[in-house]
Amino acid sequence: MSLSMHAASAPVLIRMLGNLLAWLDKAQAHAEARKFDTANYLGLRLAPDMLPFTRQIQICSDGAKGCMARLAGQEVPKWDDTEATLDELRARVRRTIEYVQSFEPAQIDGSEAREILLPTRQGEPLKFTGENYLKHFVLPNFYFHATMTYALLRHAGVELGKRDYLGAA
Amino acid sequence: MSLSMHAASAPVLIRMLGNLLAWLDKAQAHAEARKFDTANYLGLRLAPDMLPFTRQIQICSDGAKGCMARLAGQEVPKWDDTEATLDELRARVRRTIEYVQSFEPAQIDGSEAREILLPTRQGEPLKFTGENYLKHFVLPNFYFHATMTYALLRHAGVELGKRDYLGAA
Repeated sequence: MSLSMHAASAPVLIRMLGNLLAWLDKAQAHAEARKFDTANYLGLRLAPDMLPFTRQIQICSDGAKGCMARLAGQEVPKWDDTEATLDELRARVRRTIEYVQSFEPAQIDGSEAREILLPTRQGEPLKFTGENYLKHFVLPNFYFHATMTYALLRHAGVELGKRDYLGAA
Repeated sequence: MSLSMHAASAPVLIRMLGNLLAWLDKAQAHAEARKFDTANYLGLRLAPDMLPFTRQIQICSDGAKGCMARLAGQEVPKWDDTEATLDELRARVRRTIEYVQSFEPAQIDGSEAREILLPTRQGEPLKFTGENYLKHFVLPNFYFHATMTYALLRHAGVELGKRDYLGAA
């Protein structure tokens, strides 16, 4: 017995994206209770040289989308980063969940040794096996941006706790 | 082909704990350049009701230690949370790496369906399969506290970037 590549990726991504949707619901309720515009969340940054809230969520989405496409040997679909409201960010997350769900296990399983080339801004792509791409790039990066999203909401006073972060056990 | 439980856990934990040691080196250099005591990092919090720097690192350590012990069906060793300096936190991280490295793949592999009982403060333990414990508890929780450690250092002005977070590709 062991973990298939699909079992080690899709359910993990779907679970955390679903948790993220629940955080956004709490963020909405928090804004309504305090009567501020939910758009005020979108530009929040933990430090002036860190990416804002909207980008954290878009990068979570891109990480999940890129993972599934690349492991399946497909071209990664380009989604424009045009979200300008909390509702549009929610729609982006839902679209990402549906995209991840659209892959059959058979499309992902067996991708451990597949060569994954990750474009970089510097020109030379990063080269991974499917296994190392998932373990040492996709998951840490995805959790990084999910955690930053959570941290920004906590910083903004939204009442979130570890149970919200982890979701239903 | 697929991922063994050891391959999906130990190298992932070891990589990120090694990255964390490199962040602490940069934090030390940052403190020396600005002539402040590295102990000033230890109590930093992102919000007044979030755990401080020292606890973030101790919880990363506990997450990695608990993962290996529980998947191997061993009692989780109790390590006292007594670290009071950056050097002692480094030693805790190194000890954790050595502990994770001390397990042979054969002790961890095949633990997908092992019943894992996680004690909670409420009394009733959380029950997982080994696979779900690793995927939906250990890894998101471990990355959460690693990312919080990173966020606190970024907030404190330490020059870290995504390459430091992910480590050598």
